[in-house]
Amino acid sequence: MKKTYALAQFSMSDVYEENIQRADNYIKEASEKGACFLLLPELFERHYFCQVEDYSKFALAEEFSSSKTLAHFSEMAKKYHIVLPISFFERKNTVYFNSLAMIDADGTILGLYRKSHIPTGECYEEKFYFSEGDTEFKVFDTEAGRIGAAICWDQWFPEVARILTLKGAQLLCYPTAIGSEPVLPKDSKDHWQNVMKGHAAANIIPVMAANRVGTESVRKSSMTFFGSSFVSDEYGNFLATLDRKEEKLLLVDLDLEKCDQERTEWGVFRDRRVDLYGDILSLTGEKKNK
Amino acid sequence: MKKTYALAQFSMSDVYEENIQRADNYIKEASEKGACFLLLPELFERHYFCQVEDYSKFALAEEFSSSKTLAHFSEMAKKYHIVLPISFFERKNTVYFNSLAMIDADGTILGLYRKSHIPTGECYEEKFYFSEGDTEFKVFDTEAGRIGAAICWDQWFPEVARILTLKGAQLLCYPTAIGSEPVLPKDSKDHWQNVMKGHAAANIIPVMAANRVGTESVRKSSMTFFGSSFVSDEYGNFLATLDRKEEKLLLVDLDLEKCDQERTEWGVFRDRRVDLYGDILSLTGEKKNK
Repeated sequence: MKKTYALAQFSMSDVYEENIQRADNYIKEASEKGACFLLLPELFERHYFCQVEDYSKFALAEEFSSSKTLAHFSEMAKKYHIVLPISFFERKNTVYFNSLAMIDADGTILGLYRKSHIPTGECYEEKFYFSEGDTEFKVFDTEAGRIGAAICWDQWFPEVARILTLKGAQLLCYPTAIGSEPVLPKDSKDHWQNVMKGHAAANIIPVMAANRVGTESVRKSSMTFFGSSFVSDEYGNFLATLDRKEEKLLLVDLDLEKCDQERTEWGVFRDRRVDLYGDILSLTGEKKNK
Repeated sequence: MKKTYALAQFSMSDVYEENIQRADNYIKEASEKGACFLLLPELFERHYFCQVEDYSKFALAEEFSSSKTLAHFSEMAKKYHIVLPISFFERKNTVYFNSLAMIDADGTILGLYRKSHIPTGECYEEKFYFSEGDTEFKVFDTEAGRIGAAICWDQWFPEVARILTLKGAQLLCYPTAIGSEPVLPKDSKDHWQNVMKGHAAANIIPVMAANRVGTESVRKSSMTFFGSSFVSDEYGNFLATLDRKEEKLLLVDLDLEKCDQERTEWGVFRDRRVDLYGDILSLTGEKKNK
């Protein structure tokens, strides 16, 4: 049975309340258009503060159990009967994570995922702020299906998509903040999309990524996010895409049970040679588990 | 430094000598056009005999150490100074494999890879003929670079591409025989390409796949191979493609050292969370190694 799934691509201001209002508007619109699920970009509460290393930003983090942001979106999920994966800056005592809470359509906060892969480098100074996540990979059983949720840099790792699918995911979603690479220099838009389309095709599962747009400047640094949010079908073909600048809700109809059937029929999950994959558990391809 | 790499897409007759002649012609042409490497399709010695289950076909297999086919292509590699991965039907006493020998440009047979993932189903009855390969995944150090070679159904598994890259591969190549899916029914052309473009993008490594074309009929069965051989760049974009019918040599220029540098710069191999990947070693996503 087909259901409607949505993602929102937009720019952020540096005023928390304004971004929450923008997210709320998209939630309302998505719900009115029949969506059972809405994916918002990574860390949409503010500008992408990881562009530079700034000690003052640690004060922005919230505890999972007492987050006012999560309480707000729990109310919104319930009010609009929509599943909401919410990316937020998490503090647990003196340790900080780039986290995601999955909120079900009745407002229940189902659980927490902490971003496992943390990038660094010009404009993406996440290793300065975040510890590597300790939750392992998470699939959430929601009213919109079993959702495998990971965050931005996680999207570059085939291991994550594979494990989420093995754990029963029916849809993969990645809140994202990606754009300028001033030092390399490089436009990673196609590369970024191709990796995730590959995850979709290899695991026979639809994939959604929601990125921000706009230019954000801080100190002497500036970066432009390239949008290009998209949904891939279970064969790795684009179902829908946004461009590099538009601020918009993107809606697609997905039949997750049909994908489950296709995943069985194609036979790849029957034929995996798990006896041969030990090298994956090493950084260098030198086997650790035999 | 750029070098020229080639693949050949063609149809096979059911006469061994004719197919060897076709392969020889492509080797000569590739060499004359400056290629250091030529990828031929899977099991190009004959029609794709796995279309049906036929006990008489076991007689076609050769031992690795005494194969006349490999001896011939060793001579061709040396004569034309070109690296040749050669797909062949291998017999080792009473066990049979879908194998590949890597032949260096001086004619040296560097080693053997046995296809790890064996498909089955209408038109692809490989489990009837072949045992699952026992060589693990292989990277061959050739005059054309370090080549990660796997075979057809292996191309659907992100684990293979990842492990080959971890083991130092600079280029991935997949001899292939794929086309009709009469029962599902399905045209898997895009799906097939998207998976491998995903391997390229995720591992930042060029990927080549050489498929056959034409219709082959046996008993009451018939299948049409969809060609569509291609080379992907290290970002998962097509560098060159062939269509569903043409019989042709495809040439591309690749700078494998430049890809090595990009693989380092992007940082994904620095940031892998090998402590979290244990589920990959299970069929069901239930952890075996912690």
